[in-house]
Amino acid sequence: MSTRVPFKQVDVFTSCPYKGNPVAVVNCWDVEEKTIQQATLQNIANWTNLSETTFLFKPTDDQCDYKVRIFTPMMELPFAGHPTLGTCHAYLEFTGRQNVDKIYQQCGLGVIELSVLGKTISFKGAKAEVRQVQSDLARQYDTSLSTTFITQPLLLEVGPQWVVALVENAQTCFDMNVDMALLKETITKHKDATGLIVAGKYPGAEKYEMRAFAPTHGVPEDPVCGSGSLALARYLQELYGFTSNYAFEISQGGRLGRQGKISAQVLHAGRDITYHVGGECISVINGEFLL
Amino acid sequence: MSTRVPFKQVDVFTSCPYKGNPVAVVNCWDVEEKTIQQATLQNIANWTNLSETTFLFKPTDDQCDYKVRIFTPMMELPFAGHPTLGTCHAYLEFTGRQNVDKIYQQCGLGVIELSVLGKTISFKGAKAEVRQVQSDLARQYDTSLSTTFITQPLLLEVGPQWVVALVENAQTCFDMNVDMALLKETITKHKDATGLIVAGKYPGAEKYEMRAFAPTHGVPEDPVCGSGSLALARYLQELYGFTSNYAFEISQGGRLGRQGKISAQVLHAGRDITYHVGGECISVINGEFLL
Repeated sequence: MSTRVPFKQVDVFTSCPYKGNPVAVVNCWDVEEKTIQQATLQNIANWTNLSETTFLFKPTDDQCDYKVRIFTPMMELPFAGHPTLGTCHAYLEFTGRQNVDKIYQQCGLGVIELSVLGKTISFKGAKAEVRQVQSDLARQYDTSLSTTFITQPLLLEVGPQWVVALVENAQTCFDMNVDMALLKETITKHKDATGLIVAGKYPGAEKYEMRAFAPTHGVPEDPVCGSGSLALARYLQELYGFTSNYAFEISQGGRLGRQGKISAQVLHAGRDITYHVGGECISVINGEFLL
Repeated sequence: MSTRVPFKQVDVFTSCPYKGNPVAVVNCWDVEEKTIQQATLQNIANWTNLSETTFLFKPTDDQCDYKVRIFTPMMELPFAGHPTLGTCHAYLEFTGRQNVDKIYQQCGLGVIELSVLGKTISFKGAKAEVRQVQSDLARQYDTSLSTTFITQPLLLEVGPQWVVALVENAQTCFDMNVDMALLKETITKHKDATGLIVAGKYPGAEKYEMRAFAPTHGVPEDPVCGSGSLALARYLQELYGFTSNYAFEISQGGRLGRQGKISAQVLHAGRDITYHVGGECISVINGEFLL
């Protein structure tokens, strides 16, 4: 169509530029959604070469602040964590809205509730299902690490399906090496699993070092992983049975030269438990995009 | 350092947005090069996730128009084709220079001469060495395709080291499928080779369909390949022994949803033969970058 629209490339889950997880946000607020072909959106997402590119539209649902469509280089996704945070950050900057504490995002999965507190934006995760991992598979996951699990791995369905387990502590998690061939074989055999999340606690702090591996999806190690953080929060609730609110921090990506920082919360409201994942965002690129 | 500098993300080798090969160009003209750490440049190139990110500086060599440093997500390169064309295009837009026919680029490899003709920018390739490919390896390359070579493959050293050969015609080249496991094994065995370039001529036109495969470098198929085009031009000179100027077009990337269009020339000046590769460029993103 050859028009120039506002654009940002946002670094998510970090307060230090180039150290988080990037997302490209194309602002299509003033463009009729139906005038842009699906193939054009897909071509753009293929071209940016980022894990996700998002397109911001006027909402069609009255209760929402904006609508977003999320694309990987290969396909459209109903929802994804870090692209949601980056898009919300871009929306707030584009509109200049301030002193907002709740934002409602319309996307393929439905309405996502976002909270804004200072520089941190968080999303409320959809319900996560928990499933057991067969003992022979659990052993094989364990064998693929240069260390051993200290908890029983579980399969967490949070959109992607992550196998989650803890190792001795944060340093063990940071230092461990992975037999990627064996891990890939194990995930392939498991069928249901997207990949493996391993975390270790920092002594004396409500903080975990986390690493995420998805070799069968072309991502041997993911630098900063929103859905993996959601899975870890749900896993800790299962493990420790918190009966009141629990907030913790996750550090990720150090082994890949990143410094991802994720804030996670398990919130209790009566019998209802919700899971929240958030972080800071920085707009590294501001400009216009040729649509 | 937290300053905002001009930025462009340029689509190279195409006249149709998102259909070429992108490069990110960070304009550091007003920044002292020594004040930016190498690690920062590398972090940025890792973050953009493009095959190359370039940094434009004031030249330190008086005969040059600008200096460029070129980074992949993993390392700095002395030279690369499509990043050179994208950077030159960005330089011309940043400075507003018009009616220019020659531009001299300072980079790790030395001084690169660029020609500007209408919308097309071309670079003059460094001398390309030609080497034979052992017959058992040549056979194995051939076997990795669903078609057969009609010419003897040769190894062309143009920076990367491409094995080049022709197949029957353009359609054969477009349609062929590759046994990627066998090709990977062959390239690994060959040791010297970066990858394989296959081309087929369009009937009745000085135009080739080209495909580039570099599976051992994490690029099973490259959408639009500048150095591969240079290797093909050199190969055709070897094959046909042109005694006067020869210009041809290359189409690439169709199987990957791209529409790369490359102009190649073999120029004769007395006994001196030079090789030139060029294309059109489009600035898809214009803006500022947080440095």
